[in-house]
Parts: sequence; C-alpha cells; structure tokens
Amino acid sequence: MLGDYLATSVSLVEEELGRSLPTEWDIPIKLRESMNYSLSAGGKRLRPVLVLASAEAARGDERDSKAALRVACAVELIHTYSLIHDDLPAMDNDDFRRGKPTNHRVFGEAMAILSGDALLTHAFQLAASARHYGASPVDVLDIVEDLARLSGAAGMVGGQAADMQGEQGITTLAELEYIHEHKTSDLIVFSVRAGARLGGADAETLAKLTTFGRKIGLAFQIQDDILDLIGDEKKLGKKTNSDTVAGKVTYPYLIGMEESRRLMEKLTEEAKQALYEAKLKRPDRLLQLSDYLMNRDR
Amino acid sequence: MLGDYLATSVSLVEEELGRSLPTEWDIPIKLRESMNYSLSAGGKRLRPVLVLASAEAARGDERDSKAALRVACAVELIHTYSLIHDDLPAMDNDDFRRGKPTNHRVFGEAMAILSGDALLTHAFQLAASARHYGASPVDVLDIVEDLARLSGAAGMVGGQAADMQGEQGITTLAELEYIHEHKTSDLIVFSVRAGARLGGADAETLAKLTTFGRKIGLAFQIQDDILDLIGDEKKLGKKTNSDTVAGKVTYPYLIGMEESRRLMEKLTEEAKQALYEAKLKRPDRLLQLSDYLMNRDR
Repeated sequence: MLGDYLATSVSLVEEELGRSLPTEWDIPIKLRESMNYSLSAGGKRLRPVLVLASAEAARGDERDSKAALRVACAVELIHTYSLIHDDLPAMDNDDFRRGKPTNHRVFGEAMAILSGDALLTHAFQLAASARHYGASPVDVLDIVEDLARLSGAAGMVGGQAADMQGEQGITTLAELEYIHEHKTSDLIVFSVRAGARLGGADAETLAKLTTFGRKIGLAFQIQDDILDLIGDEKKLGKKTNSDTVAGKVTYPYLIGMEESRRLMEKLTEEAKQALYEAKLKRPDRLLQLSDYLMNRDR
Repeated sequence: MLGDYLATSVSLVEEELGRSLPTEWDIPIKLRESMNYSLSAGGKRLRPVLVLASAEAARGDERDSKAALRVACAVELIHTYSLIHDDLPAMDNDDFRRGKPTNHRVFGEAMAILSGDALLTHAFQLAASARHYGASPVDVLDIVEDLARLSGAAGMVGGQAADMQGEQGITTLAELEYIHEHKTSDLIVFSVRAGARLGGADAETLAKLTTFGRKIGLAFQIQDDILDLIGDEKKLGKKTNSDTVAGKVTYPYLIGMEESRRLMEKLTEEAKQALYEAKLKRPDRLLQLSDYLMNRDR
C-alpha cells in the first residue's frame, strides 16, 4: 500500500518535472538538454514525496495539490543541481551517478556548472509559482525564505563546504553531525515544513516537523553510510566503500557499525515521536515513510 | 551632482552588502570569507544603483527605501555569483578581476563554485525579505519571479550558455544580440522593473522600463566592447583586447568600430525615449544615468 502510494507520488512528481521548464521559454538547446538530463535521471524523489506527504498529513486528505507539487519540484531541482555541482572534477570528481555518466561527462564542465546554476535559479521560480495555484502569498514567501535559508550558505551549501574542509580531518561526531545536518537534513526539513505549511499547519506543528526532518535526515545519512559499506556495487550503482576510499569520514568509520545502527534507530524513534506530537490530521503516511527509509536496501 | 548621487547610492549599497550575510548565521568560515571577498571587490554597482534610482523615479522622491535596498543587494549578489562562476577554469579561466585575483585563485575551485551557489541562493533570501520592510507580498513575489526568470535558463544563464556555444562561431548580429540581451540586459531589465514596482509603477510603466532596460543594456555592452578595444590595460584592470584574444566575437569585430558607435548611440536614444514615455514621477536620474553610462571611460 505504501508501495502504491510511493509509485503514484513519484509519477506525479516526474510528470510535473517534465513540465517544469516551459517549452515556450527561449533556452539554448544544449542548456535545456543538460538540465533535463539530470532532472530525468531518476532517484528516489524522496524530498518531493515528503512535500506531498506532509501537505496531505497537515490537510488530512490525499487530494492533489498543484501548489504542493510545484514546491515538490522546486526542492528536487535544488537537490539535482547540488548533485551536478558535487560531481564536478573540482569537487568529488565522479564519473557516474545512478549508473549513468555524470552531467559534466556528457555536456562538459562549463555546461554542467551553468545547468546547475539554472536549476537552482528555476527552483525559486517553481516555489514562487505556488501562489498561482491557490497558496497564499504570505505562505509562499515563507516557503521561498525557508528554501533560501535551508539550501544556502547556512544550509545545504554550508554543509557541503564544511564537508570539503573536513576532508582534511574530521575527528568528532559533532563535526560529522554538522555536515550532515546541513548537507542532508536541511532539504528534508524544508520539504516537510513546506508541505505542512501549504496544508495549513500552525507554527507549533512546523517546529515539530523541523525536529522530525532533522532527525530523520541524520538517520537517513547514517543508513546511507551503512549501506555504502555493506552494499554491493550493483545495487547502489556506484563504487562500494567510495566514501572511505575518497578519504571521507562516515558514521561507521567514526563510531563503528553497531553504534551507527543504534544511533540510526534512536534518531528514527525520536523523529517518529516528534511526528506524534505534531498536530497532524493524518500522520500515518509520514510514519510509514520513516520506517520505509530505515528498512531500504538502497 | 550625479557624481554625488552615485557616490551616496554606492555607499548605501555597499553598507547593506556588508550586512547582507547575517553574522549570527552559522556559515563555515572559509565559505563566508569567499563570499565576502567577491562581494566587497568593488565594481560600478550599476544594477543596484538602477534599482534605487528606478524606485525613486516611480515614487517621485529620494527617500531611502530599505525594501529597494534589499532588492538592490539581491541583484548585486546574482551579478557577483555570475562573475565568480564565469571566471572558473572550465569557463573563461580568468586569473584577475578588477585587478584582484579571482575567487578560485584565492579560495580554490571547489569553494568558488560553492560560494557562487551560496550567493545565488542568498539573492532570493534578500529579494524575499523586502516584504519585511513594507513591500506588499504580491509585489515581492512578482519580484522573486522576475529575478528567477531574468537570471535563469531563459535569462542571464541562458545568455552565458549561448555565449559558450557561440565561441564555435557567431556570424550574425542577431546571434550576438541574443547573447547580450540575456547576459547583460536581463539583469538591468530586472533592476529597473523591480525598483519601479516597489515605487508603485503600473504595468504600462513596467513595460516601458523593460524596453529601456533591454536597450540600455545592449548599448552598455557595445560600449564595453569598444572600451575593451581602445582602453588601456591599467584603466580597465584587465588585459586589453582580451575578448578577441579569447576568440570571442564583439560588436567592433562583427560590424566595425564606427557602426558599433552608431548602434550604441541609437540604442541609447531609444532607451531614453522609452523613459520619456513611461509614467515616471521623476525620470531625471535615470536619464542622467543613461548619459553617464554612455560617456564613461571604464
């Protein structure tokens, strides 16, 4: 049943992503191709699904909300641009992503930089456009400000910058948490807050969802580190153990496998607790998603 | 008198730029340094000055407007990020900008990419924040959507992408105009439209200002090409003739020096004509700025 729900949500999101760059916009052909190449490269679409699920949880039904769908695409564009830029030779220098050549391998470095910039910029267009689909201007501006804060210098980009500097030697759990809170959790926090806001949630609910997003994001990252260590190359579509090969510090590396698992389970429980405390009309999908994320094998 | 006005506006903008990254935000130190390095690197601050001047022109007085100042900084952040990314080795590979080492020469390529991303993201924070200073939520959302459109795939980034592809052979004036309309004019169009919107301009005035911005932007670019060709290295702070050395096509290269001057003057006249037709309470500063731009020697 969650499987059906996920399939439906992902297909809604992918249809909308396919429409997100207006065909009538005069965009240089190579730039458009490069943007669409990475946008259509698949992935779990976790963040947009969380926007939709959170909107439904706050609203209490599963009605389609075009406003939520636009914001869902906005956060996926941010996530996509961050992968393109992270894969660049000057950053992680990755040749493959999800089994396909990375953007700069296909379109060249300059176009990869530009298509990342264009996707990042277009994310704000999509977020702002929610007002044309029934969302109130004030809610939409709150969402735009949240998106900028959580994806910017003190958010996702900050996490990435700290990660790069940290390659010269992370030694404490606090340092690792800083990185992942921003690199991974911040966009998840954005997703659940934005969805709930569109679903009419109050400030207290948004605060609980911030806690939920932060903790589920960290748990997700620890799970990723664990899967990276034990997962086989084929399932992940990238080289197993790449994070230690590249000299990056992971949770299992820092605190061991067993302790990592325990921390992941603790964070998941705390995340779910925050959900119970939030005044959501239908928290069940978000609860199911939390369990699903912690039991995935990829 | 225009000199005093410019000095005052530039100093207002630079003070606000200095405050634009909140000190209480938890930003990795190197990232903050890298962002501030390029933000404080000077320049004409043309786009933010146009936001302020256009707000005053529409409103009919020279009262400080904090909302306009926030939007003025937003467009300067976009301009600054675009210079950082354009200077990267994979793009124009420039070592110097305004006589100082480029961002990636000081902070490394990875940090330059990230600080560009962070500045671009923060621009939307600043634009959205105008609502906290008296601007109406609907006006601010219009400004956010304009900013995304005019700086994105069908705007500034599109112009940059076309320029890169065009290095393989531009032959017509129409191709060159496409590049500069987007690379240069679009942010100028944004600036005059955003200022006027905050100053209460109606749709017809905004349309006239779009024409003004497009034409003055092209004239500005032609003037830049001409100055590049005749200017001495010291005044420009970069290698004279670099645009032909790098294999880039310029107006003088394509249509000759005399024809370039004529085109520039024609565009400036048409730009000023659009200003006269716009229903502005005080168009004088914008008119003076137009003349100033066409008579600059750098």
